[in-house]
Amino acid sequence: MKSSFTPVQIRELCRLGQFTSSTAGVAAGFVQANLVVLPQSLAFDFLLFCQRNPKPCPVLEVTDPGSPEPRSIAPGADLRTDLPRYQVFSNGKLVEETTDIRQFWRDDLVAFLIGCSFTFETAMLKAGLPVRHIEEGKNVPMYRTNIPCLPAGCFSGEMVVSMRPLSPPAAIQAVQITSRYSKTHGTPIHLGDPAAIGIQNIDCPDFGDAVTIGEQEIPVFWACGVTTQIALFHAKPELAITHAPGHMFVADLKDELLAV
Amino acid sequence: MKSSFTPVQIRELCRLGQFTSSTAGVAAGFVQANLVVLPQSLAFDFLLFCQRNPKPCPVLEVTDPGSPEPRSIAPGADLRTDLPRYQVFSNGKLVEETTDIRQFWRDDLVAFLIGCSFTFETAMLKAGLPVRHIEEGKNVPMYRTNIPCLPAGCFSGEMVVSMRPLSPPAAIQAVQITSRYSKTHGTPIHLGDPAAIGIQNIDCPDFGDAVTIGEQEIPVFWACGVTTQIALFHAKPELAITHAPGHMFVADLKDELLAV
Repeated sequence: MKSSFTPVQIRELCRLGQFTSSTAGVAAGFVQANLVVLPQSLAFDFLLFCQRNPKPCPVLEVTDPGSPEPRSIAPGADLRTDLPRYQVFSNGKLVEETTDIRQFWRDDLVAFLIGCSFTFETAMLKAGLPVRHIEEGKNVPMYRTNIPCLPAGCFSGEMVVSMRPLSPPAAIQAVQITSRYSKTHGTPIHLGDPAAIGIQNIDCPDFGDAVTIGEQEIPVFWACGVTTQIALFHAKPELAITHAPGHMFVADLKDELLAV
Repeated sequence: MKSSFTPVQIRELCRLGQFTSSTAGVAAGFVQANLVVLPQSLAFDFLLFCQRNPKPCPVLEVTDPGSPEPRSIAPGADLRTDLPRYQVFSNGKLVEETTDIRQFWRDDLVAFLIGCSFTFETAMLKAGLPVRHIEEGKNVPMYRTNIPCLPAGCFSGEMVVSMRPLSPPAAIQAVQITSRYSKTHGTPIHLGDPAAIGIQNIDCPDFGDAVTIGEQEIPVFWACGVTTQIALFHAKPELAITHAPGHMFVADLKDELLAV
């Protein structure tokens, strides 16, 4: 059962090239994170972009320039090998998908680890709330909105959101539960009418899969880490490396430690 | 009554040189902030220091290089004139105390606004909890501890804490109330034995004034924004400008908007 692997075990399997698939449901109860690697020359602008847009881009850790080790959330890990799959971008264009980025690593690279909504989904499930895309064995539906992020240097763009359908009482409870997880997107940013935030067709997500919305349910929207990919697309840095969608970094930190 | 001035009025009086005293009790209900101004060359390291040490250094806003306007929390304000009093440091040494820093301003300067515990004190008072230094008309007592901050680039040092004496039931309630204010230091970092965090004599604070601790009371310690001054002292930047202690920036943001 991949849910019962420890974070150390998963990272070792990744390092050996023996685990290259999605981390959904892996090492249950431990924090997973989005990865963004950038040259140091862009690191201040990107960190500032995250600081100005903390709901889509909650920073869990930033490595020292040149160091691939996330000392706080996974001491001893190596971000160049310990994720199942990476994407490498040159001037905003995807140039390679790979399971090991050692050949691209440089002394001036800085790695950012950004919180992921897998964390609060565990808390929602524990409280008995439905998480539809898990029930249906799909990826979470994600949408581009018309909500502008606050720009910082070359980084800008609209917010991306993830959506989970809930009955009104469940939506209220979900607000309560996710408010404890400000480091993994926190409270929803909207509920109800998708058009109010610029989403034209709820059945056609821009990323991930469409899910069933029950008759008594309303769509509830959370800020999403994919927002950083929009910002990278606008900035077009000479080099950027991210995790491949769904193939996250698994940290040693327990979900509960991120809750306030 | 200075408590009933609006933030705009206070900032205008500062700009005209007609308000040069402490902002304690000023514009009640509005957020006050610590100011740190640094050259852009040090901005990434300092922002990273804050990111790694969010309890003592919660970032409310960072201005664009060269811009003295905190667009999010006080649009239209000018950080060069709108605080009552500033301190200017050269290579870690205090070289001037002034009410206007326009003569020192440069196109490469970045201003950081850091949350301040005045915000949660208002919430404590509203809940009927005692805030001893306010009762006694004193500055809050602050202490250097032996708790190391996580370093970032040239910034490092031990955490500074503020202390408020409370009965055990009041301490429990204060944990609950201040947990909503993660942007202004959040929950306490310690309660009880001062020696456990390296404080030798609770009656001799390193900054601010000693206050009475009742027989049934325990000292409760919160991370403090003065930690940034220790970090600046260690880094010794060629230029750094801060608010003078107690002479904070008053933002347009209401305290309640910072609560989660």
